[in-house]
Amino acid sequence: MKLSFMQTIKVQSNKREEMIEITSEVENALRESDVKEGICVLFTQHTTCGLTVNENADPDVKSDMLLFLRTLIPQYYEGFKHSEQNSDAHIKSSLVGSSVTIPFADGKLLLGRWQGIYLCEFDGARERKVLLKII
Amino acid sequence: MKLSFMQTIKVQSNKREEMIEITSEVENALRESDVKEGICVLFTQHTTCGLTVNENADPDVKSDMLLFLRTLIPQYYEGFKHSEQNSDAHIKSSLVGSSVTIPFADGKLLLGRWQGIYLCEFDGARERKVLLKII
Amino acid sequence: MKLSFMQTIKVQSNKREEMIEITSEVENALRESDVKEGICVLFTQHTTCGLTVNENADPDVKSDMLLFLRTLIPQYYEGFKHSEQNSDAHIKSSLVGSSVTIPFADGKLLLGRWQGIYLCEFDGARERKVLLKII
Repeated sequence: MKLSFMQTIKVQSNKREEMIEITSEVENALRESDVKEGICVLFTQHTTCGLTVNENADPDVKSDMLLFLRTLIPQYYEGFKHSEQNSDAHIKSSLVGSSVTIPFADGKLLLGRWQGIYLCEFDGARERKVLLKII
Repeated sequence: MKLSFMQTIKVQSNKREEMIEITSEVENALRESDVKEGICVLFTQHTTCGLTVNENADPDVKSDMLLFLRTLIPQYYEGFKHSEQNSDAHIKSSLVGSSVTIPFADGKLLLGRWQGIYLCEFDGARERKVLLKII
Repeated sequence: MKLSFMQTIKVQSNKREEMIEITSEVENALRESDVKEGICVLFTQHTTCGLTVNENADPDVKSDMLLFLRTLIPQYYEGFKHSEQNSDAHIKSSLVGSSVTIPFADGKLLLGRWQGIYLCEFDGARERKVLLKII
């Protein structure tokens, strides 16, 4: 067992808005850590993307989520003053959240049958960093 | 003290949308663990419900929250493609979040005076599982 | 190293809706703890405010976020029954979330270049308490 295991996962987005699954990267890091039981904390070091756990079976779930969030929180909104024109992405980031915490046992993430871990890109394309810390 | 304490809390929902308080179940598990100080991580293994901490005094808070979320994120929305007709529930799940983390000391959850822990059902009625992990 | 380090950060809000940065308070507590590596869990003991990580460079991001959330989730909404007229604040609290978890190493929070930690006041002015627990 490596104490204080931490790793950085790099994620390349290719569109302004995109949900990119990182479950296998997290599973690989967990294997590498050789820790068998605990919690896995993922934290993104950015302010215009988020992390979430959601369905990884039907890809329509992702596109429905992104479509709805784009309509609910538009990029160009009367009253936005932030000059980078990505206030919508900052808002989505705070609503979705910048971290997820997932328990694991026997060296495996305790995700439900339909769950995957996603980086939610709201202001891409960019390279993003996700810190993975095992406790 | 039992090392690596984990427990599964089962929650039965009875409606499509419902906030079900699980504070006492979490307190019971904490007592059983016999751990006195740390954090309690709750994680739901599903993609159409969420976990949150909110008021447990006036039940109108719960019904106002559910009413508003139902109006804001409708079940039937032009453009949704996911065939199970629960894309709204997936979106609510990611906005509310699939986990909560609560510190405890002296064997007691450090909740504020008005706080309770809720499973937010957005696509019931179903039996849901919440993992409780103590660190 | 102090085992089981916990501290309470008090935050005074001055308006109904306000994002108050608490990054330096968290950094001070971390220094005081003398713990070098782990996760820092922040938890607010209230039901009408939230905690988030977002941009701390351009103050327009904060005002855009508050403006948008105020418009999206209005204080006075037909159908709200909760008599304290702050159901909007309860909803915002559950969407933003009542806790954040941030990894640290070498005694320093692993925040990204533009990230700061905020208490999001949605029903001020009040004094708020944020628990800081180091694991």
